[in-house]
Amino acid sequence: MVQLKGDERIDFLLAEENMRIIQSDQVFAFSIDAVLLARFTSVPRTRGRILDLCTGNGVIPLFLSRRSKVDITGVEIQERLYDMALRNIKLNNLHERLHMVHGDLKDMPSHLGNGRFDLVTCNPPYFPTPAHDKRNLNEHLAIARHEIYCSLEDVVKSCSRLTKSGGKVSMVHRPGRLADIITLFRKYQLEPKRLQFVHPKKGKEANVLLIEASRDGKPDLKILPPLYTHNENGEYSHEFREILYGK
Amino acid sequence: MVQLKGDERIDFLLAEENMRIIQSDQVFAFSIDAVLLARFTSVPRTRGRILDLCTGNGVIPLFLSRRSKVDITGVEIQERLYDMALRNIKLNNLHERLHMVHGDLKDMPSHLGNGRFDLVTCNPPYFPTPAHDKRNLNEHLAIARHEIYCSLEDVVKSCSRLTKSGGKVSMVHRPGRLADIITLFRKYQLEPKRLQFVHPKKGKEANVLLIEASRDGKPDLKILPPLYTHNENGEYSHEFREILYGK
Repeated sequence: MVQLKGDERIDFLLAEENMRIIQSDQVFAFSIDAVLLARFTSVPRTRGRILDLCTGNGVIPLFLSRRSKVDITGVEIQERLYDMALRNIKLNNLHERLHMVHGDLKDMPSHLGNGRFDLVTCNPPYFPTPAHDKRNLNEHLAIARHEIYCSLEDVVKSCSRLTKSGGKVSMVHRPGRLADIITLFRKYQLEPKRLQFVHPKKGKEANVLLIEASRDGKPDLKILPPLYTHNENGEYSHEFREILYGK
Repeated sequence: MVQLKGDERIDFLLAEENMRIIQSDQVFAFSIDAVLLARFTSVPRTRGRILDLCTGNGVIPLFLSRRSKVDITGVEIQERLYDMALRNIKLNNLHERLHMVHGDLKDMPSHLGNGRFDLVTCNPPYFPTPAHDKRNLNEHLAIARHEIYCSLEDVVKSCSRLTKSGGKVSMVHRPGRLADIITLFRKYQLEPKRLQFVHPKKGKEANVLLIEASRDGKPDLKILPPLYTHNENGEYSHEFREILYGK
């Protein structure tokens, strides 16, 4: 058994039967964006290595463990979240394939090695660091949401260095940052290959972007069909319910 | 009356009642993409100047003359197409507001002046220049479709120089070039502000992209709701029929 701390609870991992995840509203609870990224990304299925940066409580490694048989490593800078991620691995009996590193993603190329991974995923902080008095007073949430410990450029640079030539980098972010993401990806030899936008409903602007790039790849970008999370009535759409809860 | 040459014919300008356009399958007939760009772009309505590069037979200036009261200039490098554009202006009695320049877009900043326009539109050649034996044997069509006289970078550079600070640049292109377009836009101080993808039908990848940037603008990109040209039965969709033929 694993121990729960503070306001932690154990949730179902949505469509993944028999999987559970420790969460906490005060510290870290996974978002829809993590679910979307875990479903969107290509994965090496039987050979290779996967790395997940900004892993939080390890939600993306947990989801990806169902799509792939390879070893998956998560990296988290906050010790409190790293500790949750360790217990999530134990809770799901995945200690043989899932590993956690407590550290700064900027140090990972020297710590884990350049070009070691076939896939690097990341659900990074979305927002530029605000003035101190406008930050989320909860430091755990502020670090997960704002570029306090790492800028977007830090994230892209680390992703690029950690990925082998021909390997993939997948990221979820806000559409407003698309131009920054593409410019930085190109700067660090990550060629965008697949791009998908998620719209809250028909007729609305996108609120999430999913992008996958190939390290040292050739230009050949595909814009996938968009995804709508809600239908006209404001309920989850059929396609989105399938992503969340399975068929 | 205007004179028709060779295989030229006079077509209706789709939804624009009382407007006509001279076209030719051998020389130049406007595409869906020109219609999409003319509808997508923001326009200065009563004050300012509009420029359309790679104007062909002047189709975009003709469409925009219905959305705006300002002067519109078209630039075309092929004399045969420039001549069609001149006759199209005459045919529609628009010689007071529409003007044509026969020349190379790379020469336009020195010819027309830097920073003179509030909006520059462009439906450029989409395809890198192929080996000579794979080119379209029809030279008129080859020049309109391939980067023979101008690369994408030439187009973006001229668009940027011709647009005033705070003015807009709107372009239609293929989704596969999005990363090139965004990288070049940023290189030439054009900040992407609005992006829309056109999909042939639901569940298919995009086949057209529409992008609008602001010269010296601040980063703040919106991804508009996608447009579908066809419905499930393979017919034009309702929204696309409205764009083509009006309500």
